Amino acid sequence: MSDWIFGINPVREALAGGRRKPLELFLAREGGQRLRELASVASEVGVPVRNRERADLEKLAGHGRHQGAVLRVEPFSYVDLDDLLSGRRASGRPGFFLVLDGVTDPHNFGALLRSAAAAGCHGVIVPKDHSCPVTGVVDRASAGALEHVSLCQVVNLARALEVLKQAGLWVYGLAGEADQDLYDTDLAGAVALVVGSEGKGLRPNVRRHCDLVLAIPMAGGVGSLNVSVAGAIALFEVVRQRRARPSC
Amino acid sequence: MSDWIFGINPVREALAGGRRKPLELFLAREGGQRLRELASVASEVGVPVRNRERADLEKLAGHGRHQGAVLRVEPFSYVDLDDLLSGRRASGRPGFFLVLDGVTDPHNFGALLRSAAAAGCHGVIVPKDHSCPVTGVVDRASAGALEHVSLCQVVNLARALEVLKQAGLWVYGLAGEADQDLYDTDLAGAVALVVGSEGKGLRPNVRRHCDLVLAIPMAGGVGSLNVSVAGAIALFEVVRQRRARPSC
Repeated sequence: MSDWIFGINPVREALAGGRRKPLELFLAREGGQRLRELASVASEVGVPVRNRERADLEKLAGHGRHQGAVLRVEPFSYVDLDDLLSGRRASGRPGFFLVLDGVTDPHNFGALLRSAAAAGCHGVIVPKDHSCPVTGVVDRASAGALEHVSLCQVVNLARALEVLKQAGLWVYGLAGEADQDLYDTDLAGAVALVVGSEGKGLRPNVRRHCDLVLAIPMAGGVGSLNVSVAGAIALFEVVRQRRARPSC
Repeated sequence: MSDWIFGINPVREALAGGRRKPLELFLAREGGQRLRELASVASEVGVPVRNRERADLEKLAGHGRHQGAVLRVEPFSYVDLDDLLSGRRASGRPGFFLVLDGVTDPHNFGALLRSAAAAGCHGVIVPKDHSCPVTGVVDRASAGALEHVSLCQVVNLARALEVLKQAGLWVYGLAGEADQDLYDTDLAGAVALVVGSEGKGLRPNVRRHCDLVLAIPMAGGVGSLNVSVAGAIALFEVVRQRRARPSC
């Protein structure tokens, strides 16, 4: 199994070095100056270049938004939950994790990774099933965030939440209909925020393992926020509270 | 000129009543139960139903994600800036506006409208040029928010910012590289938040008309947040500060 990165800028960034080894670069045959530049970068770093018809690139990328450049890279390597927790201890900061329960849309997944990295999360935890694979769309929507935040895949999300709690973290779910207000909650300590899926929210079994379920207060008439927006608002409320109390 | 709404749920909501009068419903010829239900709702409210091939629906929607239902509606009607300011006065709450300078991606535009509605904004202000039209994609990404927030289109955004300032609002731009921290800024009074375009941020002439430019503090290594995420974080920081000081 390999993964694919597409588009001129994402491919250039991936060739320049990152967490995932570039293996093979496919370029459109009738390419212009920018594709020729990519070919020369690839040659410099020893990545073989193959010229292909645009229709073939479309098959590799799964769509037409590849701009003539598709890079095959090593499959994404997830971080172990134990390693994630060790990384947290080594950082000297209170633990800060984002848990995604069933976020399947790659744009939302990528945007959440980007927000988690920007908020300074130690890592993002996703279940092996009910999740989105790390595709080129995710890479692109994350704007390179996967270079700055660790991604951990677990078989049993409820069990992972128990491990986090045993490690001293507070586990807070997000749900529009919760009674507890996000802004009335102390989030300056070690926390894991759990965000549910776009349509259905948190699964009941995951919700049961949260210490508290929090709601973002909303004006009348509006049912819910986009999941990547709700996640970001909660992530940055943690950032705000920690800045307000620098001892944390 | 007409506008188009597509997808079973958005079409059902638009038929059930809203700001934009439904004019004509196009349904896929080989439709199932859910499309037949839409046809009967349309008949009840007096909207003519046309059966078409899926390929023709694709042409109307501009893509294939129409689920067999495309509704032609009256063109979107924007609110006047004067009316927006009157609405603010009538509400009895301090003014709260979101200004979008060059947000052209319909998903981001829709998500920002949704966040603005959820945050209780009086209205969203966009320039006539350098903006995204209110398409079906915007409607869908906004999840019906246009029923709850007024949208105002202005010819000259810099002049509109001056009108807002004269009406007693503080005009705050958002920019990653600003010196002033969002969380160190008093946002509990009457405010207009100005968000720039995805790639380029605020235009210099718009930035010049802001009272202050604010940054969301970010962890090292991450360049920026998605524009709809950054806007939502700032919108909900206003919500948080106003709740913390209920006299506002």
